[in-house]
Amino acid sequence: MQIQASTLKGTRDYHPEQVVRRRYIFDTIRGVFELYGFRPLETPAMEKLETLTGKYGDEGDRLIFKVLNNGDFLAKVPDEILQQRDYRAMIPWIARRALRYDLTVPFARYVVQHRHQLQFPFKRYQIQPVWRADRPQKGRYQEFYQCDADVVGPISAASEAELIEIYAEVFRQLQLDVRIRINNRKVLEGIAEIAQVQDRWQEMTIAIDKLDKIGTEGVRHELFSKGFTSQQIETIFDLLLTEDIYILAEKLKVSAIGSQGVEELLALLPYFDEQRLPPNAVFDFTLARGLNYYTGFIVEVVPTEVQLGSIGGGGRYDDLTGVFGLPNLPGVGISFGAERIYDALETLDRFPSHLQWDISVLLLSMDAVSLQHAFHLARQLRRHHIPVDIYPQVAKFKKQMKYANQRKVPYVLIIGEDERIQKRYTLKNMATGEQQSLALDELIDFFNTHS
Amino acid sequence: MQIQASTLKGTRDYHPEQVVRRRYIFDTIRGVFELYGFRPLETPAMEKLETLTGKYGDEGDRLIFKVLNNGDFLAKVPDEILQQRDYRAMIPWIARRALRYDLTVPFARYVVQHRHQLQFPFKRYQIQPVWRADRPQKGRYQEFYQCDADVVGPISAASEAELIEIYAEVFRQLQLDVRIRINNRKVLEGIAEIAQVQDRWQEMTIAIDKLDKIGTEGVRHELFSKGFTSQQIETIFDLLLTEDIYILAEKLKVSAIGSQGVEELLALLPYFDEQRLPPNAVFDFTLARGLNYYTGFIVEVVPTEVQLGSIGGGGRYDDLTGVFGLPNLPGVGISFGAERIYDALETLDRFPSHLQWDISVLLLSMDAVSLQHAFHLARQLRRHHIPVDIYPQVAKFKKQMKYANQRKVPYVLIIGEDERIQKRYTLKNMATGEQQSLALDELIDFFNTHS
Repeated sequence: MQIQASTLKGTRDYHPEQVVRRRYIFDTIRGVFELYGFRPLETPAMEKLETLTGKYGDEGDRLIFKVLNNGDFLAKVPDEILQQRDYRAMIPWIARRALRYDLTVPFARYVVQHRHQLQFPFKRYQIQPVWRADRPQKGRYQEFYQCDADVVGPISAASEAELIEIYAEVFRQLQLDVRIRINNRKVLEGIAEIAQVQDRWQEMTIAIDKLDKIGTEGVRHELFSKGFTSQQIETIFDLLLTEDIYILAEKLKVSAIGSQGVEELLALLPYFDEQRLPPNAVFDFTLARGLNYYTGFIVEVVPTEVQLGSIGGGGRYDDLTGVFGLPNLPGVGISFGAERIYDALETLDRFPSHLQWDISVLLLSMDAVSLQHAFHLARQLRRHHIPVDIYPQVAKFKKQMKYANQRKVPYVLIIGEDERIQKRYTLKNMATGEQQSLALDELIDFFNTHS
Repeated sequence: MQIQASTLKGTRDYHPEQVVRRRYIFDTIRGVFELYGFRPLETPAMEKLETLTGKYGDEGDRLIFKVLNNGDFLAKVPDEILQQRDYRAMIPWIARRALRYDLTVPFARYVVQHRHQLQFPFKRYQIQPVWRADRPQKGRYQEFYQCDADVVGPISAASEAELIEIYAEVFRQLQLDVRIRINNRKVLEGIAEIAQVQDRWQEMTIAIDKLDKIGTEGVRHELFSKGFTSQQIETIFDLLLTEDIYILAEKLKVSAIGSQGVEELLALLPYFDEQRLPPNAVFDFTLARGLNYYTGFIVEVVPTEVQLGSIGGGGRYDDLTGVFGLPNLPGVGISFGAERIYDALETLDRFPSHLQWDISVLLLSMDAVSLQHAFHLARQLRRHHIPVDIYPQVAKFKKQMKYANQRKVPYVLIIGEDERIQKRYTLKNMATGEQQSLALDELIDFFNTHS
């Protein structure tokens, strides 16, 4: 039977040139993480279904990919479940395994499982794919990478300042202009308190989180429709849009929680040069962040040269591992949106140009003996760390050149009888057509200075 | 509800020190692959179930992990299947997706799907996890990495010689002594022909493949029990154990296929220095390899200093993609057994010693102001590419030193009031206890020469 060769909808192959570009992003992030003492962790793709269930809400539970038990998975399914075709009830009977939905829950599971071997503060980063059964659409995939760094255990404002610095450093290296927005959930709680909506501050936060998408008027409208009074809404916006943190501190004085939030933000400053945030970082009290497990410091990164939404975010949480029986372990973490960073770099043409070449030169040979000669030449070049390839058959020159063109190699080296005898080879620049005749040691020099 | 934090049986976490050691292996292999013009490919973890089914035999089909469809997966299952609890028949109704079982089938699927964009010869390597529902046991996991390189399209003996050279180079870099065994399936076919068992040569090959495990007597016994005559067995062994390829060539003269096999092996030699295989490579006519899609050149790598079985293998095939509708695409490939290489390096203590340190120095501070000072100092060191970490809280010195000890950092840098004022800091070697007082620029010099 012949089978149609195709990927599943919602999944994709990464072609070589894409793997190379993605690796550039991941290596940059990884390098900075390690410079800051974060250590790599990898967890299995499959976790126990019960480890993941109930952590992401009902919608999340539905979007978790479950893996069918092997062998006779129907053997123990109760009759009534089969009769009633109750697929929800059947899941735990036929699937013990599920695919990782994010990196946070596996990290929490890891910390609890191995807590006696770990030293706290424990700093880990993790760059791995996750799977979600979202309806596939342009730019949304069922398999994609997450890229997280967290520190758990004894932490302080220093840990948060470090994460801000990591964002600044990664995007400096990637040559991507960004704005790093910083806030504190306690500031939002204080604002709610002063507007006398403290019991509804989560609702307020969810509305504020939409500011980027629906604008000030949209948020006012949403709050109003939820029954917030005009007076409350005015108070909220007056506080939110305060630009100076010291003025906000004055306004929040009457709120204990709000004052603590401001204090936690100000506590970041002594860690930076001249007691100021990095030039591309700002306090922005309208920043809310969606996830409701954040309890203090929150941060988000947006590119300034393209409209793409956030390309990074994170914050402080107080109870990562309680659900696994280890309560009150605080932490703070950030993540990078690698897929969007890829899009931003591509749109802005910021990938380093050398990434386009996989080899420095392709060796072409005119006859069987030249092919053998090419092989020995290639060995010498490779010993000098110059990546080269050889057209592996004797073939018409035209065919070999066509291959070189299509594969987009920067140079070809032509080896025929004359070249073999004189031990000087014709190097052709594929972009300019320029040719020169070089001996082996000249070739080594040439490529060591041209790459 | 509290949930037990544990991994699934058959899966495991890779702790930071393991990730670092595995990365060392993968980066070494990757570096050599790229030096030889192989390009990285990544395919999705999930493939269509029909893409994988029927490619690995009945046993393989059973061991493929199937992923349950999302939503009401029971909706379309025919009644009789439910009534009869026919789990085998139910699979295609409830699972459209499956987890990658190896890297070869997804590669074949990739080549066919994207054949119009690819340039042939197409050289790719792929380092990704695969999943198999094998019964978990010591050293056997349900999730493990494979590491393959293949070239498909126009190839020649040069392509095979290149793969031998890659094996030699990777294990040279990993400082692992190996023997690279080389044979050709056609030689085995020729031997079968001369022993007059040509119609049973696959059976013969399967028995010979067990030589390492059950020895010569075991193989003789197995062949005998399968009805091979003593005479045939003698002939087979006489030919198999021929040491000199030119003597074997004489013996195989009467077999066209056998002679072709010898010729293909000899065709490798002109590509090597002095027309000889690398010192650790040998022609070994007892090498059979299990997989039956190999049609010519075959190769296997075994470590010589530990008993571990093979740590690499591969060969030439003629029809990778026929099942996906693209017939007669030849190729040759090798793979590395990364998990066993890890075990070998660990047993022999061959991992580079610097892999044990994740940071160069941990900064400890005596008070809140020193912690801020430490942060500025860390920034300077990091700007000079020195990975450092800071204990992120003001804490008792003893507690901080305990952390430094447990985390196994090579050096700590102690910052208190005196140090801050004098701008000279106490650097302590954690192994020797030695201390010295250094200024920032001296620290930078120290770590740039000590790492």
